[in-house]
Amino acid sequence: MPLAAFPPPPGFNAPEQVHITQGDHDGRSVIVSWVTPDEKYPNVVTHWEANSKRKHKTHSIIKTYRYFNYSSGYIHHATIKRLKYDTKYFYQLGSGNATRRFHFTTPPKVGPDVPYIFGIIGDLGQTYDSNQTFEHYVSNPKGQAVLFVGDLSYADDHPQHDNRRWDSWGRFVEKSTAYQAWIWVPGNHELDYAPEIGENVPFKPYTHRYHVPYRASQSTSPLWYSIKRASAYIIVLSSYSAYGKYTPQYAWLEKELPKVNRAETPWLIVLLHSPWYNSNSYHYMEGESMRVAFESWFVQHKVDLVVAGHVHSYERTNRFSNVQYNITNGISTPVKDPSAPVYLTIGDGGNIEGLADRYTEPQPSYSAYREASFGHAMLEIKNRTHAHFTWHRNHDNEAVVADSQWLFNRYWYPEEEHC
Amino acid sequence: MPLAAFPPPPGFNAPEQVHITQGDHDGRSVIVSWVTPDEKYPNVVTHWEANSKRKHKTHSIIKTYRYFNYSSGYIHHATIKRLKYDTKYFYQLGSGNATRRFHFTTPPKVGPDVPYIFGIIGDLGQTYDSNQTFEHYVSNPKGQAVLFVGDLSYADDHPQHDNRRWDSWGRFVEKSTAYQAWIWVPGNHELDYAPEIGENVPFKPYTHRYHVPYRASQSTSPLWYSIKRASAYIIVLSSYSAYGKYTPQYAWLEKELPKVNRAETPWLIVLLHSPWYNSNSYHYMEGESMRVAFESWFVQHKVDLVVAGHVHSYERTNRFSNVQYNITNGISTPVKDPSAPVYLTIGDGGNIEGLADRYTEPQPSYSAYREASFGHAMLEIKNRTHAHFTWHRNHDNEAVVADSQWLFNRYWYPEEEHC
Repeated sequence: MPLAAFPPPPGFNAPEQVHITQGDHDGRSVIVSWVTPDEKYPNVVTHWEANSKRKHKTHSIIKTYRYFNYSSGYIHHATIKRLKYDTKYFYQLGSGNATRRFHFTTPPKVGPDVPYIFGIIGDLGQTYDSNQTFEHYVSNPKGQAVLFVGDLSYADDHPQHDNRRWDSWGRFVEKSTAYQAWIWVPGNHELDYAPEIGENVPFKPYTHRYHVPYRASQSTSPLWYSIKRASAYIIVLSSYSAYGKYTPQYAWLEKELPKVNRAETPWLIVLLHSPWYNSNSYHYMEGESMRVAFESWFVQHKVDLVVAGHVHSYERTNRFSNVQYNITNGISTPVKDPSAPVYLTIGDGGNIEGLADRYTEPQPSYSAYREASFGHAMLEIKNRTHAHFTWHRNHDNEAVVADSQWLFNRYWYPEEEHC
Repeated sequence: MPLAAFPPPPGFNAPEQVHITQGDHDGRSVIVSWVTPDEKYPNVVTHWEANSKRKHKTHSIIKTYRYFNYSSGYIHHATIKRLKYDTKYFYQLGSGNATRRFHFTTPPKVGPDVPYIFGIIGDLGQTYDSNQTFEHYVSNPKGQAVLFVGDLSYADDHPQHDNRRWDSWGRFVEKSTAYQAWIWVPGNHELDYAPEIGENVPFKPYTHRYHVPYRASQSTSPLWYSIKRASAYIIVLSSYSAYGKYTPQYAWLEKELPKVNRAETPWLIVLLHSPWYNSNSYHYMEGESMRVAFESWFVQHKVDLVVAGHVHSYERTNRFSNVQYNITNGISTPVKDPSAPVYLTIGDGGNIEGLADRYTEPQPSYSAYREASFGHAMLEIKNRTHAHFTWHRNHDNEAVVADSQWLFNRYWYPEEEHC
């Protein structure tokens, strides 16, 4: 869609590109982020409970950055702390005739049987297909938070990574991101690594614009972290950071996985951008290097679900693993494994590069369902044993389910699933 | 060896820990680095040709860093440019009674049949074994430059990564590093990643102390780069940085390999820390994730030699590759391949953790020779077709060759080698 399709809100210095995400490990904080285009101030968010008049102010930290010939607006990040669980709050940004008001509902207190509904979107971009995906998701009132598996704006597909496309994307998705937490994962289109124009710092626009609560999980980088939300333990990994042994991400994940208490959060979900089990010809085997590094840990710790994007299509796997290889035994074929996660590839948000519609043939046995259509997915956690996953194509009505699966929890109910 | 074994040189603020490395892509520059413990100045190196009285001054840039409770001295890096090839130079640091004088010989002009002799050392440390390895190497007048494949000081094996051990190591090796170029490769002991004491920046001491000419090869990080020296094209990679597709290191290597002109530099040598072909039980398969990322490129571009450290022993492979795997075919056994490099593991410098003396059994077919002894190696390039590699154990006299191989150049003479 053209830049003109994403006008800023009216009023001088009106706060724009408002987005919220979880602000701590347990769900009692919210990070509110927004951009003021002209002036730094006001740098405050005012919030109050829906059924109360008592208002609270939280100041933001303010970031700016330059990228080639682009200068960002003032990017605000305010962490609202000590919220009540499962409570509706209003919040307000800006001043005068540029005041804007939004609301969010905090997640319920973490617990093993707490139901929760996540939307799942990847590789969204800002095309007409993106818009359809986004509108479908927004039209369904059930989604309480979004797991976004990377590749946000595709600014880097524009000349000199035209960073105005980061701004327009922030405006495009605001009507959801201002009202519910989107959980962010870095994708390759967040790298914005362009030494040919002097831009050598990976993830510069992304890390300035999208803050995540990485310190709350003892991570030392915003590119990998974890949160607990309702009955889910969500681990975010970076396909585009170091993951060799001894590296920060490796060291963090090695300590992180044993910390997960399935009696508190039965659903162990990993989000990363580049899929490990993909049978599309596009990006085939790109995830191998990271799979080799970490897959055995996922099986050992009985990860329930791994969600990736990157490939512009949809795929769901059977529970397969490939962890027996020791070089000399040559055993390297993926095999059925009840301790393995289900792998979902949901890179079908809309992007700007088109659908990935060439598949390896024949369909490998690890692949349960694959289709090159735009869409999004929903994950409805019911209790500690059951969750229902559905995939929704853009060319159907949102209510139509094109693919679905009942997921049985690997810790509490490790039975074989039947679609 | 105790800290007291490494006294600073006499004189107030005497320059210490002097080391040199190649300063550009072709060998006409030298980076001279040194530490002044008390005062910033003088920050100048004076150099002159051995057969000339004309002196030149080059100013250093000065770095300092803090690490936990340690504050570094003033770390100087001066790049002397526009040197003549194959020429002996003297250089002088410091002032007054703390003046110190050294010398180096520039490499010959790059060309396809230029002979050159490299020492190869890895995982040196500063133990009595380290000392024996180092003294053996120094006692052999043939070595013209050192390929050092990572793990320098092992400061991180001391409480709070006692950075005085970085200083003592710099003094320990000075009698070689001040006189000939050591080509540096980052190892895991250079990470110094210690979030438990608030040290979250990987490679902080290493990158402050050891400068390399990475910009000359269009790299954007000192952790990977290339140089040409005599008839060799040397590529340094980082096992502990990101190497997934789209990452800076991946993007750099993808462009770098096609640039190598074997008519100019027949010998294509890759240095990295964590070996891809290792049959020792220690660190077994740790290199798999990076091998999966890059091995097919090495075979395609007919890399002659890959040198690694990390495993505290010695191993040399036959020319094997493992690049046929496509997931569904299950073909994942290393096979003989005349286009594959020879892989050397020379992590036997001395370290502080002991020898790696447990091997996988039986010895796999890719492994030609393996032995858990301390030592170092020499690589004598004769011309565009032949190079002679020798391994020297510490428990023999330096002149004794424990293992050796004539290497036939993969571009000019891709015949099968016989030891």
